[in-house]
Amino acid sequence: MDPYDQFVKIAHRLADAARPVVRKYYRTAVAVDVKADASPVTIADREVETVMRAILAEECPDHGILGEEHGRQNIDAEYVWVLDPIDGTKSFIVGKPSFATLIALCHNGTPVLGIIDQAITDERWVGVTGQQTTFNGSPIATRPCPALDQAIFFTTAPELFRGPQILAYETIRNRCRQPMYGVDAYAFGLTALGLADVVVEANTQAYDFCALVPVVEGAGGKMSDWQGNPLTLHSDGCLVATGDRQCHEQVLTITKAAMP
Amino acid sequence: MDPYDQFVKIAHRLADAARPVVRKYYRTAVAVDVKADASPVTIADREVETVMRAILAEECPDHGILGEEHGRQNIDAEYVWVLDPIDGTKSFIVGKPSFATLIALCHNGTPVLGIIDQAITDERWVGVTGQQTTFNGSPIATRPCPALDQAIFFTTAPELFRGPQILAYETIRNRCRQPMYGVDAYAFGLTALGLADVVVEANTQAYDFCALVPVVEGAGGKMSDWQGNPLTLHSDGCLVATGDRQCHEQVLTITKAAMP
Repeated sequence: MDPYDQFVKIAHRLADAARPVVRKYYRTAVAVDVKADASPVTIADREVETVMRAILAEECPDHGILGEEHGRQNIDAEYVWVLDPIDGTKSFIVGKPSFATLIALCHNGTPVLGIIDQAITDERWVGVTGQQTTFNGSPIATRPCPALDQAIFFTTAPELFRGPQILAYETIRNRCRQPMYGVDAYAFGLTALGLADVVVEANTQAYDFCALVPVVEGAGGKMSDWQGNPLTLHSDGCLVATGDRQCHEQVLTITKAAMP
Repeated sequence: MDPYDQFVKIAHRLADAARPVVRKYYRTAVAVDVKADASPVTIADREVETVMRAILAEECPDHGILGEEHGRQNIDAEYVWVLDPIDGTKSFIVGKPSFATLIALCHNGTPVLGIIDQAITDERWVGVTGQQTTFNGSPIATRPCPALDQAIFFTTAPELFRGPQILAYETIRNRCRQPMYGVDAYAFGLTALGLADVVVEANTQAYDFCALVPVVEGAGGKMSDWQGNPLTLHSDGCLVATGDRQCHEQVLTITKAAMP
């Protein structure tokens, strides 16, 4: 048995528990609070994370947890679960089914298991280190796209980028075949499915990206920070994901030039 | 019987016929052609329109048709059907279920009936002049949002805007509560549902917007061109849609200033 099999089962259990809560609040007029970092949060975000934490307390009480809404707990543990109950809260609030529940497990800081789960469209991506990524149970793969000028490029919004990052974003946008906007983690899922090619984000948090790494890489793609370093629990939140590893190098040439 | 009832039945029949074709090609590696205006088109776009035209030829051969893919036919007729088989072809190609089939009926150039249909998420908006808009059969209404600074604002992409339009877009984006990107006609559906507040687009075609007008206005919102004129088959393709009529005036102040 693969050493991660037991954890994959727990991760599915978390995603299964999140779904009815997400569905209960979807397109209802949920109250929106604004957090210290100006990002919105709803009762749905908080309740989904509470439900998932209760399962982890029962299944693996010695593991750490880093969640978007309810903070850090024992995050120096060997295994740390990283939870974003609703990634793309803005999409959730407007009733656009491109948000996702993100569930990651990090081993000594490195993401080794990731789930992207969309409760409304019934879509689940599962990535595990050393295994082929699956989508609703079937294996998936990225597509070849060796050159940026052939790429469909996603980012959540132009407003993500700050200072010298803006030039990098504009350079990639101008060189790619087609820029697209607005879908948060879902864009990484589309890349893993071989339907998009490049995703670049900036200034995100560990709970935004840890789950994405095993999904994209297990489908044959590559993810790193803007310098080309592997992503860990402690990365700075600037991301490059590509379906094609050759294209990754091209994008890094641009992002590296934008860094201090 | 409402004079439009017979046409509503035909419009549903068109949407019903479009769905299996859309589903057949969704997330398959459809070949993408690039049209003279640089917009992408697939076999799915063409086949959906062909299927809808065959029904119109049978049901109302004396009506005109303006379709995105197969051109104009008798468009000086009293009644003209305006068809966009897949609005948001870019979203369709990447497998993002925010594209839609748009079906409109214009009477002497004015849109009097509109359907926005999403085949993957099973969502259908129906707007008819003088009637309350419905979503999957249930009546819906826009929400109050009298001031732009409280508004969730959608546009498909910053790249839509050209020349002096860019300043208008940037002004709206900077004044609104939250800018969002990337969902084409779906954003108008979310506005009709009372989940978003303002949509501004530029340089679109009659088949992109005719179906949206009865949907948004029948839910209590307002749509016009950037000067505040009602939209017709012959409008210039610059659109303002708001759920709240007071907010419409605020947005027009900005768009009017950008026009020659």
